[in-house]
Amino acid sequence: MKKYSEMSREELREEYSALKKAYKDFQYKALSLDMSRGKPSPEQLDLSMGMMDVLSSSEDADMTGEDGVDCRNYGDLEGIPEAKELLADIMEVNPSNIIIYGNSSLNVMYDFISRSYTHGVMGSTPWCRLPEVKFLCVVPGYDRHFKITEYFGIKMINVPMLATGPDMDMVEKLVSSDDSIKGIWCVPKYSNPTGNSYDDETVRRFARLKPAAPDFRIYWDNAYTIHHLYDHHQDHLIEILAECKRAGNPDLVYKFASTSKVTFSGSGISACAASLNNLEEIRKQLSIQTIGHDKVNQLRHVRFFKDIHGVVEHMRKHADILRPKFEAVEDIFEKELGGLEIGTWTKPNGGYFISFDSLPGCAKEIVAMAKKAGVTLTPAGAAFPYGKDPEDKNIRIAPSYPSLQEIEQAAGLFTLCVKLVSVKHFLEDASLAKTGKTEEKESTETA
Amino acid sequence: MKKYSEMSREELREEYSALKKAYKDFQYKALSLDMSRGKPSPEQLDLSMGMMDVLSSSEDADMTGEDGVDCRNYGDLEGIPEAKELLADIMEVNPSNIIIYGNSSLNVMYDFISRSYTHGVMGSTPWCRLPEVKFLCVVPGYDRHFKITEYFGIKMINVPMLATGPDMDMVEKLVSSDDSIKGIWCVPKYSNPTGNSYDDETVRRFARLKPAAPDFRIYWDNAYTIHHLYDHHQDHLIEILAECKRAGNPDLVYKFASTSKVTFSGSGISACAASLNNLEEIRKQLSIQTIGHDKVNQLRHVRFFKDIHGVVEHMRKHADILRPKFEAVEDIFEKELGGLEIGTWTKPNGGYFISFDSLPGCAKEIVAMAKKAGVTLTPAGAAFPYGKDPEDKNIRIAPSYPSLQEIEQAAGLFTLCVKLVSVKHFLEDASLAKTGKTEEKESTETA
Repeated sequence: MKKYSEMSREELREEYSALKKAYKDFQYKALSLDMSRGKPSPEQLDLSMGMMDVLSSSEDADMTGEDGVDCRNYGDLEGIPEAKELLADIMEVNPSNIIIYGNSSLNVMYDFISRSYTHGVMGSTPWCRLPEVKFLCVVPGYDRHFKITEYFGIKMINVPMLATGPDMDMVEKLVSSDDSIKGIWCVPKYSNPTGNSYDDETVRRFARLKPAAPDFRIYWDNAYTIHHLYDHHQDHLIEILAECKRAGNPDLVYKFASTSKVTFSGSGISACAASLNNLEEIRKQLSIQTIGHDKVNQLRHVRFFKDIHGVVEHMRKHADILRPKFEAVEDIFEKELGGLEIGTWTKPNGGYFISFDSLPGCAKEIVAMAKKAGVTLTPAGAAFPYGKDPEDKNIRIAPSYPSLQEIEQAAGLFTLCVKLVSVKHFLEDASLAKTGKTEEKESTETA
Repeated sequence: MKKYSEMSREELREEYSALKKAYKDFQYKALSLDMSRGKPSPEQLDLSMGMMDVLSSSEDADMTGEDGVDCRNYGDLEGIPEAKELLADIMEVNPSNIIIYGNSSLNVMYDFISRSYTHGVMGSTPWCRLPEVKFLCVVPGYDRHFKITEYFGIKMINVPMLATGPDMDMVEKLVSSDDSIKGIWCVPKYSNPTGNSYDDETVRRFARLKPAAPDFRIYWDNAYTIHHLYDHHQDHLIEILAECKRAGNPDLVYKFASTSKVTFSGSGISACAASLNNLEEIRKQLSIQTIGHDKVNQLRHVRFFKDIHGVVEHMRKHADILRPKFEAVEDIFEKELGGLEIGTWTKPNGGYFISFDSLPGCAKEIVAMAKKAGVTLTPAGAAFPYGKDPEDKNIRIAPSYPSLQEIEQAAGLFTLCVKLVSVKHFLEDASLAKTGKTEEKESTETA
């Protein structure tokens, strides 16, 4: 198919009419599909229903942890040992570097920001007493991270996500020169939303940062650490805690993970991993905050999975459900948009998202059009601090929840909306037809 | 038996020798008993084992809430409707005034203090920006409340707990005159540790407070709202949320509760109840903090209990286990200490504690002696801010965890230690023999 940038105005008008007609046909279908959030599908949740059977009231029921603690009662503030071992294996760290939390790693991250705000970090001035606190935000990124920093009035600075990870030249320069920069939000593996993983050099440069602020921390949200789509094409990430230790910066990083997209979203268990120095401070808060987290649910998880091998086999079943959905989206994007030079998209090996970049200035309109035809997408701009995508081009696609058939419909409608809005922009803005797409050309279809 | 205050020095010396011998006999028994925390016994926890069976992987398993939400997935930030109804019935409020939280109401209270510290209360100046923030603490009270306020550097002012509840003359005077006083910690029913409940006048006076600080709130931790020991001798508390509304002060109170001592300690569900204005602000934080709490556990609780009647019947079974333990302690205290005028203790109708007041200056030594003979009690002073009992006389007795036989041994040893330390004080301090006990006389054995 001819590129829009090479079409005459007449051709563009014809294309527009044809697309408009196809769009109306879609509207008649009265779809109601949601691709807005990274929610597991019911089929995926069914994979963990066995977890409802591992504990029971039967005579030989054993509710005792390996350390002899009755999991039904108070105790074991930091989690039962077998849960620490399981999460440590998932997070690729030593169990002694782990604290098990409740059902939400987001809540743990909130707590960490809140604690730093009220009490500082290992003896530093509490952030609430500082004139200004800033965070680096890798963009596009996870909207809920940015909401936390925004809630605490922390100024956010965008750092572009490249194919290799964050722009480390920019990170190094900013972090080493400005002591009001206290942290950076990272989703290092199968990143939300690009699906890219940080390469080895990026992780090494993170571990070797020399922050101007002693209370600077890397907030390493490894939410998709075991969430591969393929058996062999798996991304591998250098383990950051060990790398920081090797670099002589053991306290530089807080690492987070959970089983929210392993077992049940919202009824999993979460954990934080950090250096022993950091954990000592974290414990002080934890012992004030709660008597302990839900150990029965910890026990349930361990009894269900047995060990890390059980988890890995379980994640293959997730992959078998998710992979066709991702491939369907990619196939339709390729078929409908390939070569048109009106958008680029990622082809991740894992995680929950595909990131789509339209021509600049088109994302909001594409999302609005999809919505009007019954497909809800994440609001354009959501992956940026303050909800503002400076180029209005990024759209996060979440293919996990709808069925495969629904995904195909939704992806079809989406590409239609992309074409429609793009043609319109070429028609409305003659300058776009001259310059816009040539810049895009080089980056088209980067993975 | 003769009162120590009426004994000659010779008689006191003889009594001391006899007690010392009995104490040594106890030490030979090598006891190892813990009466330090309000932990349910294994027998009590067994009552809820049926909760492990109500959800399963069977074909007809239904994991859907009444509102159609799949409890295994994200959604329903404030809890599933049926859990709101159940907790609302427990807390005697409307479900629309409820938010369901995770496994720990202590964590909710921490969050509330932390939020007020970082963001203020309904538009007030965040407490971290104020030169001084103070809290009233009803004493003796719950040590973990005081730890939270201490962690945030909030100055704590002791308010004595009377038989009717906190000294309301003092509360009214302080709260209306000092706008740096931002809250008061209350355990209004079967209070921790006295076991007393606030009387009607006290609750009405609370609801009618006219705080100098618009961001003053009553932190109403109704932890033992349904934790009766008797079928008929039950304390009744005026419902504070409604009473505040009637008094024209709808936003004055935050109310907390959980099922920690109903089902599994640490694996229950908790809730906060407040006015719609307060809830609106609370929601703002909540939506930043988490995607939601553990709905599967909410569903498990509702399926197990069905409704409030199920909860009430369940609590009767708890009472049947707890009541003999409380009565054993009270019987032994009466038998061993009755009429001696060396201590007073409470006889609660519910809750988890008996509060014992020794002669002034004796509590620490009594607790230390009990420890040396194998019985761990809550550290003396723990029920006071900063761990400091100004009179060193209060000791919290927690009879729930040990078996009945162990309780009898522990209570026996405890009374022995009380006598031993008291005799020693009469011997060492001649002035005590003259004045100390006459003051005590009036309050001996108040319930």
